[in-house]
Amino acid sequence: MDLFTKGGFTLPGEAGYEKLTLEMAEKWGADVIRDSDGTKLSPEITAAGYRIYSTLCIIREHNEFARQHPDAQQQCFLSSDPVTATAGTLEIRPLEGYFEEQFQLNDSPEAMPFWQVWDRTENRLLPSDAWRYKNGVVTVTGRVPYHRYTVSFLVWRIWEEINMYNHTTNHWTTAHLRQLDPRHPLAWEYLKNWLEKWCEANPQTNVVRLTSLFYNFVWIFGSDLRRRTRFVDWASYDFTVSPAALKAFEQEAGYALTAEDFINKGKLQATHRPPTAPKRDYMDFIQRFVAEKAKTLVEIIHKWGKEAYVFYDDSWVGMEPYGKFFSSIGFDGLIKCVFSGFECRLCAGADVPVHELRFHPYLFPVGLGGLPTFSEGGHPERDAVAYWLHVRRALARQCVDRIGLGGYLHLTVGQDAFNNAIRDMAVAFRVLKALHAKGEPAELPITVAVLHAWGSLRSWTLSGHFHETDRNPLIHVNEALSGLPVKVKFIDFEDVKKGALRDADVLINAGRAGDAWSGGDAWKSPEIVSEVTRFVWEGGSLIGVGEPSAAEGGDTRFALAHVLGVDQDDGSYACHAPWEFTTEMSDPFFVAGESLGETKGIRLTDPETRVLTARGDTPILTLHAFGRGKGVYMGNFFYTPAGARMLLEMLLYVTGKDGTAAGITEDGMAECAWYPESRMLLVMNNTPDPLETEVRFPLGALTVSLNPFEMKFVPV
Amino acid sequence: MDLFTKGGFTLPGEAGYEKLTLEMAEKWGADVIRDSDGTKLSPEITAAGYRIYSTLCIIREHNEFARQHPDAQQQCFLSSDPVTATAGTLEIRPLEGYFEEQFQLNDSPEAMPFWQVWDRTENRLLPSDAWRYKNGVVTVTGRVPYHRYTVSFLVWRIWEEINMYNHTTNHWTTAHLRQLDPRHPLAWEYLKNWLEKWCEANPQTNVVRLTSLFYNFVWIFGSDLRRRTRFVDWASYDFTVSPAALKAFEQEAGYALTAEDFINKGKLQATHRPPTAPKRDYMDFIQRFVAEKAKTLVEIIHKWGKEAYVFYDDSWVGMEPYGKFFSSIGFDGLIKCVFSGFECRLCAGADVPVHELRFHPYLFPVGLGGLPTFSEGGHPERDAVAYWLHVRRALARQCVDRIGLGGYLHLTVGQDAFNNAIRDMAVAFRVLKALHAKGEPAELPITVAVLHAWGSLRSWTLSGHFHETDRNPLIHVNEALSGLPVKVKFIDFEDVKKGALRDADVLINAGRAGDAWSGGDAWKSPEIVSEVTRFVWEGGSLIGVGEPSAAEGGDTRFALAHVLGVDQDDGSYACHAPWEFTTEMSDPFFVAGESLGETKGIRLTDPETRVLTARGDTPILTLHAFGRGKGVYMGNFFYTPAGARMLLEMLLYVTGKDGTAAGITEDGMAECAWYPESRMLLVMNNTPDPLETEVRFPLGALTVSLNPFEMKFVPV
Repeated sequence: MDLFTKGGFTLPGEAGYEKLTLEMAEKWGADVIRDSDGTKLSPEITAAGYRIYSTLCIIREHNEFARQHPDAQQQCFLSSDPVTATAGTLEIRPLEGYFEEQFQLNDSPEAMPFWQVWDRTENRLLPSDAWRYKNGVVTVTGRVPYHRYTVSFLVWRIWEEINMYNHTTNHWTTAHLRQLDPRHPLAWEYLKNWLEKWCEANPQTNVVRLTSLFYNFVWIFGSDLRRRTRFVDWASYDFTVSPAALKAFEQEAGYALTAEDFINKGKLQATHRPPTAPKRDYMDFIQRFVAEKAKTLVEIIHKWGKEAYVFYDDSWVGMEPYGKFFSSIGFDGLIKCVFSGFECRLCAGADVPVHELRFHPYLFPVGLGGLPTFSEGGHPERDAVAYWLHVRRALARQCVDRIGLGGYLHLTVGQDAFNNAIRDMAVAFRVLKALHAKGEPAELPITVAVLHAWGSLRSWTLSGHFHETDRNPLIHVNEALSGLPVKVKFIDFEDVKKGALRDADVLINAGRAGDAWSGGDAWKSPEIVSEVTRFVWEGGSLIGVGEPSAAEGGDTRFALAHVLGVDQDDGSYACHAPWEFTTEMSDPFFVAGESLGETKGIRLTDPETRVLTARGDTPILTLHAFGRGKGVYMGNFFYTPAGARMLLEMLLYVTGKDGTAAGITEDGMAECAWYPESRMLLVMNNTPDPLETEVRFPLGALTVSLNPFEMKFVPV
Repeated sequence: MDLFTKGGFTLPGEAGYEKLTLEMAEKWGADVIRDSDGTKLSPEITAAGYRIYSTLCIIREHNEFARQHPDAQQQCFLSSDPVTATAGTLEIRPLEGYFEEQFQLNDSPEAMPFWQVWDRTENRLLPSDAWRYKNGVVTVTGRVPYHRYTVSFLVWRIWEEINMYNHTTNHWTTAHLRQLDPRHPLAWEYLKNWLEKWCEANPQTNVVRLTSLFYNFVWIFGSDLRRRTRFVDWASYDFTVSPAALKAFEQEAGYALTAEDFINKGKLQATHRPPTAPKRDYMDFIQRFVAEKAKTLVEIIHKWGKEAYVFYDDSWVGMEPYGKFFSSIGFDGLIKCVFSGFECRLCAGADVPVHELRFHPYLFPVGLGGLPTFSEGGHPERDAVAYWLHVRRALARQCVDRIGLGGYLHLTVGQDAFNNAIRDMAVAFRVLKALHAKGEPAELPITVAVLHAWGSLRSWTLSGHFHETDRNPLIHVNEALSGLPVKVKFIDFEDVKKGALRDADVLINAGRAGDAWSGGDAWKSPEIVSEVTRFVWEGGSLIGVGEPSAAEGGDTRFALAHVLGVDQDDGSYACHAPWEFTTEMSDPFFVAGESLGETKGIRLTDPETRVLTARGDTPILTLHAFGRGKGVYMGNFFYTPAGARMLLEMLLYVTGKDGTAAGITEDGMAECAWYPESRMLLVMNNTPDPLETEVRFPLGALTVSLNPFEMKFVPV
């Protein structure tokens, strides 16, 4: 294993802990040392022969410029809470209920034409002469008694959101950082110059690691601590808005957007909901803008002989690694922090030279979920192993180039278990990387197409980390798929029309009625419904989870009920009795009960639908023959190792394929990968107990003994 | 109590058990003896000095006529199950999956123009040249590959449904009875003559008890025993359809109905769904027809010196005791079988001289729910008491004129506990009737308006008995209200527009999104929403249960979310965080936890909404101040005696009234009624244990001790 003790590892250096930094670099085999937020590396470290990453967040830490040019700050639309018109004058204070340290009314002459007042009882826009604005108050003169009114308005965002979060959550006491909008010409000139000067002043830096780019994901705070976070969406574009952006959009697109295109009756346009056509256009417009500006920054960095890596979090909006413009930026590397397998695949699949993972937990006293890690009550080694179990199975399928940690290195002092675990993971990663370099692992001849409203733009991810989206069945499906030996592609409804099912074997649709993942109104399209119908009839298979293909207005709640053999009673079945069924005692595949869940109102549409598992009267796992293909329905799906295996067994069953081709373990709690060029079998134990399992693979079968959670490389 | 041993009681006589009949008549104090289905009374009974009821079901038992005039049989529309167009010819056998002993295709020249073929994938009606019909098969020539097609068609109903049920469930072996359509001129002449002759031949009969009228509630059987009952709706009009009816409707209404007005994408028009305008028109048309024909029958009965009572079950459709035409028929009495309090109120409130209840259990071996009653394993006394607990509290509020039993009297032999219980109930009923006769019980100055799509037409009832509709929160609310000392009215959305809230104190809306009880699209009306908003703002109160005021397209899921202080997340809140809340430990009223239930996705819209009870993160009982009024929300409501008391306490709390005015028990598991003219306090123990409670009433307070389930009359 000597070959695997160094390289591909980024260590967070820490000033004042120079000896520790070099010691840990040795222990973990680091080849790169980076600074973290608020940490500047000392010469002792920068001169020690390691490559150096320096972290820059381009749009913040320019408070002086922001003070001088307050109109260069970023903005967004907000909606007031609705106010009922009762007796007397109807006055609305738009910002009431919002966090006053985050937002400031933009009542400038440029902004006011974008303000709107809505009668939400009638869903009617008021003419501009039916209200007036003065000193922070909107008076609605044209009100109808007992109707409800809202004001849509623009605000300046006067506190960069990640900084605001750290202040309000981690009790930081430093200055409130402001953020600049690169669309503002003066700000843009200033930022370019600033970057030039920074590059000049930091010759030791090899890689400028941009803490994303310009626009933060949307994070709206409230004034009331009972709802401090009013809205948070990791993939929403609402924080890119400004009068200038709206005017530029109109010029490019040929039509104007209004406040309501963003406000959407106060619900905003969350990523979990199907996008409107204007929203798609606007996102495209912003992506182009972000890519152009980012390209300029990358060119400056390159000019100074440095590489430009980008961190895919925080102010990432518009960057879209799976978008049309990402590769045009010219980044040298993409860094993604990961808790989960799907995040590894997200990073590994992006079109960029270097893919790097930042492992969790960070070297912080408290983790992202708010629980202690490197502090009293924390279990950093346990956490690291838990995440690693997710990550390693994805890396076994598709590898990255580098891994690393973040945070304060001094927190590792005395954490031997953690430090050793990270060392072991680093070694395992290097072995995996070498295996992949020699030849990819064997894959089953199965292509899975995951269908939702966003398609490839949201390959693998929904909106943020697993724990932020775990109410959505799709993230569990993606997590399971991230470690399975099958080809996975993400498609949208236009792709279906364009024939994307022609080279798919299995289609997955997993979501809740009306959301972006199920697809919402797209299922009202006869073209789409009949194309999926054809696909399954002719031998493909459909796996539906939750409320797949749910749409209003059809004769069934699920547009594909006839394929799935189940439908959902949304009340309209009323007096129609359901089919009685018996639950099968023996199943065609390994059923992971704890990975299955219930969806209300599910009933059979065909008495020949086989119910493999039910909760009470509600089927939760069914199988339906349709033409030459099959429909599989799951009421819900929660990722567990056993659930991932169940999904694999389903894929094998519906396609009639044999798992041996890619290697398969007899014990469902183990997983494996077969690297034919290296003649290496990788076997992983997903349980905390010792496990012995037979493994079938193209060259035969082996019995392998594994320690708890062990990842064993078996040369054949 | 001697005064109360006889009268107001109808006994089912039984031929062959003449001695028993007279004994039981004496024991239960019967003044009327009736025959039951299949039982003819012997002269020993008919000559014993009792009034005699004779049961007639006018439209069945005319098989010979039906054989001679098959086109005089009843009909309905059905839809085939959808068939997917794959390769080759698309052939649909319309009746496939339906019970062939119930239905026969009507492919007559009169019927065929009403047949339709639908592309259900596009929801498109096919032109008539895109399909052809021959020998029971529809061939769809104009099909689109992978679209789904249905045929809407007319059938003859060749087996009267109640008879069919008894054959298939109770294994009757007698002839299958057919049923005639009184709209057929020959059939109508025949039926009138038949009734004339019957009256002439049965001089001993005092009361002709019509087993309802002409059209059965809708009951559609399937061929597959896994779904023998495909559809059952106690209040649907689909079995009144025929080409003749459709043509007559067109002539009267000025527009034509098509199959789709009934088929509704295969879902039919169930009572639990909001009615379409054409459905309302059609129901009105049928009600007028039924009333006219029924009036003719009643006139014949009267001509022969008999009275005409009608039984409100079986072929009741179109009769509508709360409809516009009921009183014009001229019935002398209305008989309703009852399991529940709401059914007593339904009967008691109808505009007819005599109101009579048929108590459950019937003297049958097996009860309506399929469990044994008067057979091995049955507990007829326990059942009778269980129903009585529901019935007596309704009778305490509004009395009827008569009670009685049905079935085979010989089954009472050896059932002393049951026989004594019925005797005691009969006595208690007579006391109640005398109290009501002297003066009505004190009522609180609270008017409750129950709002749903049907309004007063469906006063108290939804569609059938409690156990057939108990998934609907409203039936539980109605059951609770049936015994509370408040005025109750049932209103629809047009009534709201016409000012029905002006004399209401509390509005109740209880249902599921999109159903008739919540109201569905009616809540899209700004006029209705703002009128309810005004009502509460000015001091009224709203109690919402389940998914009250739920509608698509607004900025909130509940149109009255601003009044209730809660809304439902149907997915559109997506990234919007809910308000945190704490559950109050002390409540303003008695909370009956077992009567409360959860509705998915409920969240606060206002941090000042008080959460009285929650399940996990989901509030299930909340209170919201709105203007001078209040909004109360319950996730679900299940009738229990404690739940009824909770509802009473809510009504008192939101109206600020004192329960003493109508009498109120200190112990929530007891209930009372105060009859001021009789100076009589009635106190009921709703528990199986002895109970002592103080009772406050306008003249002071008393402490009353009660035996298990006791109903005690306390003279003051």
